[in-house]
Amino acid sequence: MKNSVERELPENIMNKLNLRPYKSTEIGNPEIQRVAPKVRTTTGEGKLVESLEKVVKDNVKNGMTISFHHHFRNGDFVFNQVMRIIIDSGIKELTLAPSSLTGVMNNLVIEAIKKGTITAITSSGMRGELGEFVSHGGLKNPVVFRSHGGRARAIEEGAIKIDVAFLGVPNADKLGNANGMEGNAVFGSLGYALMDAQYANKVVLLTDNLVPYPNTPASIKQTQVDYVVKVDKVGDPDKIGSGATRFTKDPKELKIAKTVNKVIVNSPYFKNGFSFQTGSGGAALAVTRYLRQSMIDNNIKASFALGGITKPTTDLLNEGLIAKVMDVQDFDKGAAESMHTNNKQQEIDASWYADPYNKGAMVDQLDVVILSALEIDTKFNVNVMSGSDGVIRGAVGGHQDAATAKLTIISAPLVRGRLATVVPDVTTVVTPGDSVDVLVTEVGIAINPKRKDLIAKLSKLPGVKIYSIEELQKMAAKLVGTPNPIEYTDKTVALVEYRDGTIIDAIKEVKK
Amino acid sequence: MKNSVERELPENIMNKLNLRPYKSTEIGNPEIQRVAPKVRTTTGEGKLVESLEKVVKDNVKNGMTISFHHHFRNGDFVFNQVMRIIIDSGIKELTLAPSSLTGVMNNLVIEAIKKGTITAITSSGMRGELGEFVSHGGLKNPVVFRSHGGRARAIEEGAIKIDVAFLGVPNADKLGNANGMEGNAVFGSLGYALMDAQYANKVVLLTDNLVPYPNTPASIKQTQVDYVVKVDKVGDPDKIGSGATRFTKDPKELKIAKTVNKVIVNSPYFKNGFSFQTGSGGAALAVTRYLRQSMIDNNIKASFALGGITKPTTDLLNEGLIAKVMDVQDFDKGAAESMHTNNKQQEIDASWYADPYNKGAMVDQLDVVILSALEIDTKFNVNVMSGSDGVIRGAVGGHQDAATAKLTIISAPLVRGRLATVVPDVTTVVTPGDSVDVLVTEVGIAINPKRKDLIAKLSKLPGVKIYSIEELQKMAAKLVGTPNPIEYTDKTVALVEYRDGTIIDAIKEVKK
Repeated sequence: MKNSVERELPENIMNKLNLRPYKSTEIGNPEIQRVAPKVRTTTGEGKLVESLEKVVKDNVKNGMTISFHHHFRNGDFVFNQVMRIIIDSGIKELTLAPSSLTGVMNNLVIEAIKKGTITAITSSGMRGELGEFVSHGGLKNPVVFRSHGGRARAIEEGAIKIDVAFLGVPNADKLGNANGMEGNAVFGSLGYALMDAQYANKVVLLTDNLVPYPNTPASIKQTQVDYVVKVDKVGDPDKIGSGATRFTKDPKELKIAKTVNKVIVNSPYFKNGFSFQTGSGGAALAVTRYLRQSMIDNNIKASFALGGITKPTTDLLNEGLIAKVMDVQDFDKGAAESMHTNNKQQEIDASWYADPYNKGAMVDQLDVVILSALEIDTKFNVNVMSGSDGVIRGAVGGHQDAATAKLTIISAPLVRGRLATVVPDVTTVVTPGDSVDVLVTEVGIAINPKRKDLIAKLSKLPGVKIYSIEELQKMAAKLVGTPNPIEYTDKTVALVEYRDGTIIDAIKEVKK
Repeated sequence: MKNSVERELPENIMNKLNLRPYKSTEIGNPEIQRVAPKVRTTTGEGKLVESLEKVVKDNVKNGMTISFHHHFRNGDFVFNQVMRIIIDSGIKELTLAPSSLTGVMNNLVIEAIKKGTITAITSSGMRGELGEFVSHGGLKNPVVFRSHGGRARAIEEGAIKIDVAFLGVPNADKLGNANGMEGNAVFGSLGYALMDAQYANKVVLLTDNLVPYPNTPASIKQTQVDYVVKVDKVGDPDKIGSGATRFTKDPKELKIAKTVNKVIVNSPYFKNGFSFQTGSGGAALAVTRYLRQSMIDNNIKASFALGGITKPTTDLLNEGLIAKVMDVQDFDKGAAESMHTNNKQQEIDASWYADPYNKGAMVDQLDVVILSALEIDTKFNVNVMSGSDGVIRGAVGGHQDAATAKLTIISAPLVRGRLATVVPDVTTVVTPGDSVDVLVTEVGIAINPKRKDLIAKLSKLPGVKIYSIEELQKMAAKLVGTPNPIEYTDKTVALVEYRDGTIIDAIKEVKK
């Protein structure tokens, strides 16, 4: 069985799980019956409990689906506390459904898989030893990778049914009113966790900072929370800021960023009221700096910036260059603090950010997005999930979601070390080429041939060479050679969903 | 069939509709499967439409349930615009399920009933000609009266399933992000309407103030909205402020207010961190003034004030005498404006305010509430729904909900004109005597005998006489005599739900 991006899908699994192959970026207007949680009525007495052990043992049962958020990133102290108890309790056959998995969780996830505690996983991504472990067939069932918007959709339509959500927060009151903005381990927007708070049957908050009742602003509300557990520490504030938010000094990255900015500025979308998402990562952050100057020079202001937010973006908000910041997560302390003080920085949940099956997501209104790539192929398909060795080491994140923008720019170097970024066929298709418009590399750009309008507009950018994507691919191959094909077994270790729930690719077990 | 407050309920209707009789104020910990709307997927294009007619005709079908909010109170221009179109379209057999009905809606509701457009109603209350019309058997099916918390519960558990909600807002962007705080016809908190926005299958916003996208803060979110219709005017700002918020100069009301304050101050609940709801109405507002002085004199600060909010309450917030205001509706412009500027004034929806079937409502945390009464009987049962002539002329509002407070004070004059307020049996039981603690009248107070603790604490209030409720009832009867019993037919014209959905009373057709 092949889907419309020519990926071979495992027919037995597709049929067994009643999955549909990916067809198109156009998802139409289906009518979706939303689901809702079971709610155990309480007046609120007795929510505040001392023992995390007791909460776990009373509520987590064999076969359940449990969830976590990843807003603490590598500063997360919550996941391991909870998972330790779950493993030691001898609970089995859990489905792990976090918003994503970060490196600090890897050891315990692997232990839990080995002991039969976790037998299924859905996540935005995985990296490091866990990626290696899964890629080599360590987990019985295929992992399901979903974008942030795809996870929101799956939760809202019932494909993910969370029994118990364990959510760490830097503050909460005794009934569970909480936000991500005050306390020691602050991360700003609770965007991804808001889905779990709204849809899980049981919601357990963990906090190291119990505040007087009633706590406001309440991003998570007492009406959603079953237990509040006081723990010593929920996170390490120094490790919450993503490593990918440093400001680059790499001349290649700076050149790419400059070119990206030229593409934006010369596109038909650079006008008053335009909107953009730059995301994190060295080159993408540098774009924000160049874009700022271009906005000032051309007296152009943006209606909103979207997505994972960084301080360079909130600086534009405070300068008045952006009217609103729509904030599903913050990548650094500066952005998190700004949400607290600037009421034009609106916290949004993952559904509002990107669920394609609702009454309009922010990404559907986006003019310009800059996204990264591990690989991009001659069909403009993008891989942000697996290495060129076939091993899982990435995350879908908001990639597929934001690629719905009117102008989707992939910024990537032609090669990385001895590996080509521009390839004949990506190892794993995460984002279909149909939603990608321009590839920007350090040697020049390639424009998706279906965007004849952009080809006309961007053909004479000063200092920017235009190539076909095939030319860029050949240039890359010439630099680094053609690698031997990866050897896989027949076992499917992961499925990658498109944002609408169709399967855009399958990942096979890599032979050792 | 009699319930536990000795009210005769119509057995045929109870059985047919599978209703349970009221038993107890204790509602336990039932597990409730929440419901969720059907969502028609869109990217957001085409939501902004010109013709209200077209939206109505495309979406409202025979037999559906439609809803409105009452935040505009008597300044509402939305209900009549929509209902005119619905009646003229010849649509039949609708259930009308607004958060409440205000006087300006009466004429069209009566016309819609007469023409068969509306055949069932659930509401918090009704007044004037509509109350007369229904009380004299004008509507085929019994009206179901629910408290604000009870409506939230009914929506969340699926007893009310709204097909189309028509929600007027003072601002909205083209995708439906909206709040109640900016524009011409501002009313502050959208608390009741947030239930409709979240749970209705189709949500139609009407606004006279289209603002740039994206509109923040978004109380109603684009993910909830199907259509945005621009109309000339959504409301008359001068009539939004409730008439019941005037500051009283009536010496009897002032005396009652002073006594209420003495009861509060001498109760065990008047200490740092206490919470209260005063509501609207002459005497209740005066209480806030006296309470303020007592808080200053005793150096006591409140953790939160709750409920329908008035400027005297937000003044206490700004003075630092209250830490937080939890705001489900605002009764005047001052309170509405304060929500916009003071981030300690948190907008809450009706579920958070008072749904008894969730994970903890604000009312469950309330220490002190002051409520009014049309009648209170010797069992402390309170009627805020029907006159002593049996005619419907009131609303449940948050009465039953807030009466769950630790100290529930009913403030009411002994008699009104030639009518007794304290009676042997109320005409309609809305709030059960079990949740009422103290009655305060101008002649003295009565304490519910089951509150022995309060009797001990309040026995020596300077200048306050303590009576049994029977003594107060006899005093009232002596002043105004004993009225002839009301003559009813056998027809049930309305059912009054307790907050948990059990039936606390039935209202019969009044003979002409």
